[in-house]
Amino acid sequence: MRVLMVGDIVGKTGRRMVVQHVRALREAEGIDFVVANGENAAGGNGLTHDVMDELLSAGIDVITSGNHIFDKKEVFQFIDDVPQLLRPINLPSGTPGHGYVVRSCQGVPVAVVNVSGRAFMPFQYDDPFRAIDHVLESLSGEVTVVLVDFHAETTSEKAAFAWYLDGRVTAVVGTHTHVPTADERILPQGTAFLTDLGMTGPMDSVIGVKTDLVVQRMLTQRPVRFETAVGRGQFGALLIDIDDGTGKALAIKRFLIRE
Amino acid sequence: MRVLMVGDIVGKTGRRMVVQHVRALREAEGIDFVVANGENAAGGNGLTHDVMDELLSAGIDVITSGNHIFDKKEVFQFIDDVPQLLRPINLPSGTPGHGYVVRSCQGVPVAVVNVSGRAFMPFQYDDPFRAIDHVLESLSGEVTVVLVDFHAETTSEKAAFAWYLDGRVTAVVGTHTHVPTADERILPQGTAFLTDLGMTGPMDSVIGVKTDLVVQRMLTQRPVRFETAVGRGQFGALLIDIDDGTGKALAIKRFLIRE
Amino acid sequence: MRVLMVGDIVGKTGRRMVVQHVRALREAEGIDFVVANGENAAGGNGLTHDVMDELLSAGIDVITSGNHIFDKKEVFQFIDDVPQLLRPINLPSGTPGHGYVVRSCQGVPVAVVNVSGRAFMPFQYDDPFRAIDHVLESLSGEVTVVLVDFHAETTSEKAAFAWYLDGRVTAVVGTHTHVPTADERILPQGTAFLTDLGMTGPMDSVIGVKTDLVVQRMLTQRPVRFETAVGRGQFGALLIDIDDGTGKALAIKRFLIRE
Amino acid sequence: MRVLMVGDIVGKTGRRMVVQHVRALREAEGIDFVVANGENAAGGNGLTHDVMDELLSAGIDVITSGNHIFDKKEVFQFIDDVPQLLRPINLPSGTPGHGYVVRSCQGVPVAVVNVSGRAFMPFQYDDPFRAIDHVLESLSGEVTVVLVDFHAETTSEKAAFAWYLDGRVTAVVGTHTHVPTADERILPQGTAFLTDLGMTGPMDSVIGVKTDLVVQRMLTQRPVRFETAVGRGQFGALLIDIDDGTGKALAIKRFLIRE
Ligand SMILES: [Fe+2]
Ligand SMILES: [Fe+2]
Ligand SMILES: [Fe+2]
Ligand SMILES: [Fe+2]
Ligand SMILES: [Fe+2]
Ligand SMILES: [Fe+2]
Ligand SMILES: [Fe+2]
Ligand SMILES: [Fe+2]
Repeated sequence: MRVLMVGDIVGKTGRRMVVQHVRALREAEGIDFVVANGENAAGGNGLTHDVMDELLSAGIDVITSGNHIFDKKEVFQFIDDVPQLLRPINLPSGTPGHGYVVRSCQGVPVAVVNVSGRAFMPFQYDDPFRAIDHVLESLSGEVTVVLVDFHAETTSEKAAFAWYLDGRVTAVVGTHTHVPTADERILPQGTAFLTDLGMTGPMDSVIGVKTDLVVQRMLTQRPVRFETAVGRGQFGALLIDIDDGTGKALAIKRFLIRE
Repeated sequence: MRVLMVGDIVGKTGRRMVVQHVRALREAEGIDFVVANGENAAGGNGLTHDVMDELLSAGIDVITSGNHIFDKKEVFQFIDDVPQLLRPINLPSGTPGHGYVVRSCQGVPVAVVNVSGRAFMPFQYDDPFRAIDHVLESLSGEVTVVLVDFHAETTSEKAAFAWYLDGRVTAVVGTHTHVPTADERILPQGTAFLTDLGMTGPMDSVIGVKTDLVVQRMLTQRPVRFETAVGRGQFGALLIDIDDGTGKALAIKRFLIRE
Repeated sequence: MRVLMVGDIVGKTGRRMVVQHVRALREAEGIDFVVANGENAAGGNGLTHDVMDELLSAGIDVITSGNHIFDKKEVFQFIDDVPQLLRPINLPSGTPGHGYVVRSCQGVPVAVVNVSGRAFMPFQYDDPFRAIDHVLESLSGEVTVVLVDFHAETTSEKAAFAWYLDGRVTAVVGTHTHVPTADERILPQGTAFLTDLGMTGPMDSVIGVKTDLVVQRMLTQRPVRFETAVGRGQFGALLIDIDDGTGKALAIKRFLIRE
Repeated sequence: MRVLMVGDIVGKTGRRMVVQHVRALREAEGIDFVVANGENAAGGNGLTHDVMDELLSAGIDVITSGNHIFDKKEVFQFIDDVPQLLRPINLPSGTPGHGYVVRSCQGVPVAVVNVSGRAFMPFQYDDPFRAIDHVLESLSGEVTVVLVDFHAETTSEKAAFAWYLDGRVTAVVGTHTHVPTADERILPQGTAFLTDLGMTGPMDSVIGVKTDLVVQRMLTQRPVRFETAVGRGQFGALLIDIDDGTGKALAIKRFLIRE
């Protein structure tokens, strides 16, 4: 099967890019399954039910997230009931929502797992290595295609996590830094890896936020209220061709669409 | 003129890639001037006089660095005397060495400035924004081509720094994360920007370090002595075509050579 | 002369403790000059004009602060005009307000300097060591009594700063952690040092915040809106007897009043 | 029973203070049980078998630790076999050694639990709240006296942890910052709490390290090799009177002995 994994969707511009490109790419590229990170989809922070509906209607099969998942309080009302909306698996036990899901794609079960890194993150997470081991154990024997969104800050934690999982999952793609990296590769045991998908959002910005506000914050070192930028969009994604039988990545292609 | 900026050279493999590719690229691409970050050139940490000589002989005009610059103590013996070896400008006053240099390239003065970001860095640096303002002031009127290596961790600080300098310098390229980003662009006022050049070093590694050791460190959360990996190399760089008169970037092309 | 330095005043309870104790202590202990940190005086974050007036009327001569100084936007309207309200000296150039002040106490000039540490702080500050050197140079010859509020997180940065200034200032007292330390001493060259004065605020709290909310934040690792606690108060301070001629600390006594 | 809990023992001076004071205090104060943090006992980093023997012979019943526990490699040879030497409970599963121990004191079982905080710590730990819940569950019904060494950086995490455990353990005392705090108290449900015991080590130092070296590190922002200071000692501890039946703290008294 052919899967597309899409980076953090940021605000109105990010959603517009999703609407314009996801269905078109599905058709043009023969994509069977789409995963996208939605943690910044509603005005830059979190997501609402309406925004989630918009994303799912636009051709996204599973929405992953990260540290911003609970920024909009209304998410607590529906996150337990929407299996295709994920939050990291390594949040404290008792956290609402689900950290992974198994969906069927043309009769083949596909697992999507959302994990968070720990280094320099604004919250404290449980050990991502043990957490994914535990999930993989529970999936074992049933699911071969496993797609991992690893939401983390540092390149070292992302690379270590991917190598740790090489041969055990189909893909490890990073999110959170909002900048696409150019290091896509298939690791020796068949796991596709990309340090960061990059955001799907407004190009003329500092990782999605209005440039002037971020510069002002850094120049003054005083509190500045951030606002999400709008305008020309970018769309960051990785296309993965998968051997349905073994779950290995056969080929990958990185996308960076810019307006 | 045509300039090549090269990311953190890591260990023996990184130096081998430099020797194999810098002169060849200079010739093949008609490159006039090469800047490369050498902070990890000697065994992964710092650089020695021999290593510096090797890099300069291989066709590098100016060596930039970052947090690892003083890891090898012998650097104190020569850093003051080698103007083409830089350490960040925003280290405390009294720090040995130079933070920027002006070299002549075909009769045109070219300034190279090495700056460090502050967010999540292992040392405390002075304000990079004021520091570069100060350098640009002192260059003003004399130099139009200004190449900035911004050695920093977060994508937001790197992007903010580039936008802050847009139209005032020729290029802002990031180093330090060791992973090449795919977001190269020329900002509206003519400044070339790339979040990170990516390392020039061993591909099968976690940002240059032996994979097993980094994974072991993360799994055990105990001290593990890191060793620099060797093997298949990668070479991360950005080529910039520059209008010598205005110092604006005319065109850019990202390189990621992989063995 | 006899000086009292008071730790971070937190919210309504902190202000109540100030009103109840500062004038009483001035009289009972023969205190000539009072410095207090007001960064959390207005509802836990920042301070308003009314709150500042309340503190100054209660017998405080100089109000220091820290990372929360600009939390209440109205402070920008008056901070430039009130010399006895300080913000750290090592904020970026151009920051409104003053970082130090010289006041007369019984004909003797007394300098109060507010400095911020850098390790683990929520903003990036300029080098505190060079910043205070610069202030001391400009005071040199005119002022012998110099009181320093060093607003910092780590015990190591606070101790290093105090030892660095030993013999050059009258006192280095820490603020920001909101917990009084028991390590008051006079360093060999005559500088009084205490790692942290501790807050003047609500005892039954986590550093001033309602206990349940902080615990909830740590248990869930989700955003929780913090509220300042009220109730039984504590008052943390250091009394310093000073040789007016030399500016050396002669004797110190730590206060921790608890209701 | 009467218990003494002692802060981080640092180097030769710290061990000397232990030898001079622990047995003397046991006798003078009628102390039945002594817990001390030994993470810095061998030359400032970790501990060896000889150093451990010296501490146990000096009258310490249980040695706790923290982030430095594995600094001396020889500890791996004996940590599994010495139940009275602890490392934090919330290290990854599979970590050598024990995180808690139950010892008999005059026929009464006494549990000592070593936990690490997470904020700003140099390693990533598992959730301390769930980890201690788990330990308390396994002790439940058998042990009422429970002494907790919470090795953490921030005052907020320490206070939150103590309030979380109020009424469920006998004492929560902090270690790691090496500076004694003055906020000892018995929380409403009977748990003794002190933010930090302070180190037992060389007074004329920056948290145990030679002052000049730490100042040099901060002034230059370059690598400086730290050395443990020697000289005049201090001894930081908390004495706790405990109701053996309920495990509640009845009275507490903080000690700071200085030479
Ligand atoms: Fe994001
Ligand atoms: Fe994120
Ligand atoms: Fe590097
Ligand atoms: Fe670096
Ligand atoms: Fe405060
Ligand atoms: Fe503060
Ligand atoms: Fe320690
Ligand atoms: Fe420690």
